[in-house]
Amino acid sequence: MSEYNAWIFTIGNEVVHGRVVNTNASYLGRKLVLLGYNLLGNISLVDDVELISRFLRYVLPGSKVIITTGGLGPTYDDRTAEAIAKAINVDLVLNDDALEMIKTKYSKLNLPLTNERLKMALLPRGAKAIPNPVGTAPGIHVEVEDKLIIALPGVPKEMEAMFEGYVEPLLRSVGPDISLVEKEFEVRALPESTAAEVVNKVLKRYPVAYVKTQPKGTELGSPILSVYVCASGKSKGEVEELVNSLVKELIEGFTAKGGLVNSKK
Amino acid sequence: MSEYNAWIFTIGNEVVHGRVVNTNASYLGRKLVLLGYNLLGNISLVDDVELISRFLRYVLPGSKVIITTGGLGPTYDDRTAEAIAKAINVDLVLNDDALEMIKTKYSKLNLPLTNERLKMALLPRGAKAIPNPVGTAPGIHVEVEDKLIIALPGVPKEMEAMFEGYVEPLLRSVGPDISLVEKEFEVRALPESTAAEVVNKVLKRYPVAYVKTQPKGTELGSPILSVYVCASGKSKGEVEELVNSLVKELIEGFTAKGGLVNSKK
Repeated sequence: MSEYNAWIFTIGNEVVHGRVVNTNASYLGRKLVLLGYNLLGNISLVDDVELISRFLRYVLPGSKVIITTGGLGPTYDDRTAEAIAKAINVDLVLNDDALEMIKTKYSKLNLPLTNERLKMALLPRGAKAIPNPVGTAPGIHVEVEDKLIIALPGVPKEMEAMFEGYVEPLLRSVGPDISLVEKEFEVRALPESTAAEVVNKVLKRYPVAYVKTQPKGTELGSPILSVYVCASGKSKGEVEELVNSLVKELIEGFTAKGGLVNSKK
Repeated sequence: MSEYNAWIFTIGNEVVHGRVVNTNASYLGRKLVLLGYNLLGNISLVDDVELISRFLRYVLPGSKVIITTGGLGPTYDDRTAEAIAKAINVDLVLNDDALEMIKTKYSKLNLPLTNERLKMALLPRGAKAIPNPVGTAPGIHVEVEDKLIIALPGVPKEMEAMFEGYVEPLLRSVGPDISLVEKEFEVRALPESTAAEVVNKVLKRYPVAYVKTQPKGTELGSPILSVYVCASGKSKGEVEELVNSLVKELIEGFTAKGGLVNSKK
């Protein structure tokens, strides 16, 4: 268990039921890993307040940060704010900052503040509103003891703008002081099971590193394996040295078994 | 709670950490919904036996079926079989059928049965092996009381072939007797929050139906909303009638508020 465990939640029937591919989770996954967080998983749930709050409560005790996307909009089934409030046992209240953000957005459009629009200003008590520079729904920033729950909208452009403008600096300031180095390359003409022998052997000498082989073609016929190597640590220089030396040993091992290695970025 | 609750698990650091977009979850999500299952969520987890088995145990009591993808290959970090065995308190044993499938695959390639390859024939005690017509790793079919746990490989082509050839007929035979009708259309020039008023009003007369609006453009500026309507029931004719009438009321409501409706498929 790391003190920087993280979880991503994706809220919405459209994702769970397969009408939308979950690109938000891969965007956030990559970001959290690069920031040095120990990301354990991504939980996508249908729009059900009871279910969402139950899973938030289930993972919160072992987490430093939970980021949710989706369920912040004006419709009746956007219920992430309610689920977070329920998970941390507070009520939903009209948040002054969120209200101001929404008023400004709609007054520019000469549209009235209907109940559906006001709903987006109802945040868990004690939460901060995260500005949305692209759309209308504000995000939610909640601190529970030393843990963070961050809720962002599901529209990728809005989510990414809010993550980069507000959440990323926050996560850097409270996150681990770490350098992470990644390398990726491809091996051809080597079945994954043969590559596995090499990886197992080499990794015994690099217990802190991470190596993942991913088949890109079928193993029978003409196999192509993508090999991803990563490691992190306090010193950038030391981590780079470790990864370079690990990659060199892997390539030697693969080549000895008949694999053809192409460098990839 | 439905007696046909379903969960999808996606296993693998590469998905959680964002190096691969989770298209398996959307494929399976759509399939399970069309088969009438009440799909509650998709849980993507890193390759950690303890974590995977803990989440399997957490959702199993309320589920009819759990389908996992990923973690069945020959490498040291492919540990889904072990996690399932642990979750249901059985040991891993060499499965005769799985061994036969693997032997046949590798003998065609004149490749020996290394430990890494034999590992793919280690299944939870009592499990059936699911044939893999595309790759090498067999799938896993476990029955616990009246619940199903199905494990498929993560390579999409293998997963889809095994789902369609083996899992789908199985799920049909034990699943609900249901007709599901879906419709989708687009509305332009209508902010999602205005559409929400219409949807909320119309849905009061259709408590069993499901309507989801999904912004495709930004709400400020030039909004485009995708509207998805679905309902299911015992009688196909009745469900079609209900959905048609619901769509008609939605379109009338949207048009009255200035929305422009295009038919989509």
